[in-house]
Amino acid sequence: MTRNNDPLLLTPGPLTTSVETKQAMLHDWGSRDTAFLNVDAAIRDRLTAIAGASRSHVCVPVQGSGTFAVEATIGTLIPPGGKALVLVNGAYGQRMVRMLEIMAIDHQILKTSEDVPPDPGAVDAVLAEDTTIGHVLAVHCETTSGIANPIEEIAYAVDRRGRALIIDAMSAFGALPLDARKVPFEALVASANKCLEGVPGLAFAIIRKRALASAQGNARSLSLDLHDQWVNFRKTGQWRFTPPTHVIMALNAALDQFDAEGGVAGRNARYSSNCKALIDGMCRLGFETLLPDDLQAPIIVTFKMPTDPRFDFQTFYDALHARGYVIYPGKLTVADSFRMGCIGHLTEDDMQNAVQTVETVLAQLGVTSPAPR
Amino acid sequence: MTRNNDPLLLTPGPLTTSVETKQAMLHDWGSRDTAFLNVDAAIRDRLTAIAGASRSHVCVPVQGSGTFAVEATIGTLIPPGGKALVLVNGAYGQRMVRMLEIMAIDHQILKTSEDVPPDPGAVDAVLAEDTTIGHVLAVHCETTSGIANPIEEIAYAVDRRGRALIIDAMSAFGALPLDARKVPFEALVASANKCLEGVPGLAFAIIRKRALASAQGNARSLSLDLHDQWVNFRKTGQWRFTPPTHVIMALNAALDQFDAEGGVAGRNARYSSNCKALIDGMCRLGFETLLPDDLQAPIIVTFKMPTDPRFDFQTFYDALHARGYVIYPGKLTVADSFRMGCIGHLTEDDMQNAVQTVETVLAQLGVTSPAPR
Repeated sequence: MTRNNDPLLLTPGPLTTSVETKQAMLHDWGSRDTAFLNVDAAIRDRLTAIAGASRSHVCVPVQGSGTFAVEATIGTLIPPGGKALVLVNGAYGQRMVRMLEIMAIDHQILKTSEDVPPDPGAVDAVLAEDTTIGHVLAVHCETTSGIANPIEEIAYAVDRRGRALIIDAMSAFGALPLDARKVPFEALVASANKCLEGVPGLAFAIIRKRALASAQGNARSLSLDLHDQWVNFRKTGQWRFTPPTHVIMALNAALDQFDAEGGVAGRNARYSSNCKALIDGMCRLGFETLLPDDLQAPIIVTFKMPTDPRFDFQTFYDALHARGYVIYPGKLTVADSFRMGCIGHLTEDDMQNAVQTVETVLAQLGVTSPAPR
Repeated sequence: MTRNNDPLLLTPGPLTTSVETKQAMLHDWGSRDTAFLNVDAAIRDRLTAIAGASRSHVCVPVQGSGTFAVEATIGTLIPPGGKALVLVNGAYGQRMVRMLEIMAIDHQILKTSEDVPPDPGAVDAVLAEDTTIGHVLAVHCETTSGIANPIEEIAYAVDRRGRALIIDAMSAFGALPLDARKVPFEALVASANKCLEGVPGLAFAIIRKRALASAQGNARSLSLDLHDQWVNFRKTGQWRFTPPTHVIMALNAALDQFDAEGGVAGRNARYSSNCKALIDGMCRLGFETLLPDDLQAPIIVTFKMPTDPRFDFQTFYDALHARGYVIYPGKLTVADSFRMGCIGHLTEDDMQNAVQTVETVLAQLGVTSPAPR
């Protein structure tokens, strides 16, 4: 199974995108030209609207990967002398800790195992005890495991203590509902190349206007200064530094498809079907998921690595690749595992075909029971 | 005149790119998949080879615009407590000063007017006097004016004093010769989207191995840590954070075309013809260039703004745009001006047609003598 001769990407990104999205890159645009700037401004408004944040927040995009936007948001919003609490249950929470270390921002860590969500009650207790913590950093869907963290309860806990929440919503935005009119957050960071199904090279933060307006001079980097970029948008409508015009136009096309599918609800429905087909099929073959269903986000699924000596992961990976499916290695520290994503321009049929291909490959490897012993 | 229904971009970037380059973006690639990683590694080798630096330097790419890579290079190579000398004769030199301010890196500035190149003798004198300066930051072609700075003489001066040179070669790389086997530099920074004629969203630094190897822990940012990225390439061949796969594949196609054109020599020849056709034509119409010919790089040309009251720049810009040409506003502080680029997938014919269109528009505006009085 391939599409346009490309293997299907069952990964957390880069993803399989639609032909229409890629074809939007067949034109060259001047980055200071009105035609481009009008589309660019509309995209920022559309992204803010997806978060239900049109009145309260603004969207500031960043060239680069999602990590660039997470670092830019942290570095722009946390003032000198500020302190953060980071909720860690995977590599992306850990990555924010690394950023804080490098930027020399004081912080505390609330860590749970990769298969355990952070506890909003524990967040409340830390904030009650340490009143110097101004910002809480949390991950909506931890791509490390695929877990859906209880972001709403965390947001309420943080808000009740009068602190600000920065959400790494990278692999959740557009598929897991999060509405600023109901859930209080200071900033949310995501990427063009996850559930919005654009191509990689562009990320963005949706930031409460009040917070951004008072963030002048905080940034530890010129390139990653979101306040400065926001001021420039207001003054000229332009990016400060050359934007990835083709990637932006791909996102514009991807957003048209997102709207046509029914927005967050429509996308959530398709990904949920994809996820169910994947898990049902893989479990039927004897694989085991890391997470119980109630913690599993319909984004990416972690399967425990079979212990059957005939199962060699690289051989399995290569055989699936040869048949048109790219899967993803595990990133867990708690258990040996691999991952299969269910986001991107993929359908339930694609997932069922992928499972069928896994079955074929298992038979060739002589693996009869892929469950870990 | 349009191409593929797009206006021709007579700008310093984003540029007009070839159809082949854009079509390379019609596929999705897994960023950790061998097929992608092989192309990606080959691109890094090709870029290093263009600088004649295959033995001495390595190429470390960065997601984002050229500015991201300049900041990453400065932040990675200048150690804590280090001091820099910045040669400024335009906005891009000034931007490096801003980066140093934000990163709190001590520095001195050697400033000349936007139409005056930095003096290698003056660089030597500053370095002789201040032995705490470890790095010199210089711009090869200052896009602000289009001036070609004497980068070789600067490099020799810096090298004789045993200091390290970081070159912002953004708009020069691939068109103005610079060979590490002859010209000593510690790092050179450029972008996929200038004279290499890729699309925007990717930049890179070519860094002396010895310098990079001793740069661990210097970086002021996780996203912009080139040492960390280099270590990761050596360990896994992979990007640390999602790379702009489509943009990278476009650069790969663009490099094929670059090679087919005869590399730096071929590209320099075409851009020089473009530049001559542009300047000859515009001067025939009565425009005046900012720079004398011996300072003009064949990249982008600054024309003095006509003072004829019938010449309104926005009207002129819009009329050219309607006829398929996007030009660029000026960025000078010394004089009112506008700019026209001659890089990108453009030929001498394109430039002559552009001049002819300027003539038509001038006639419509009733401007008979566009020279400033």
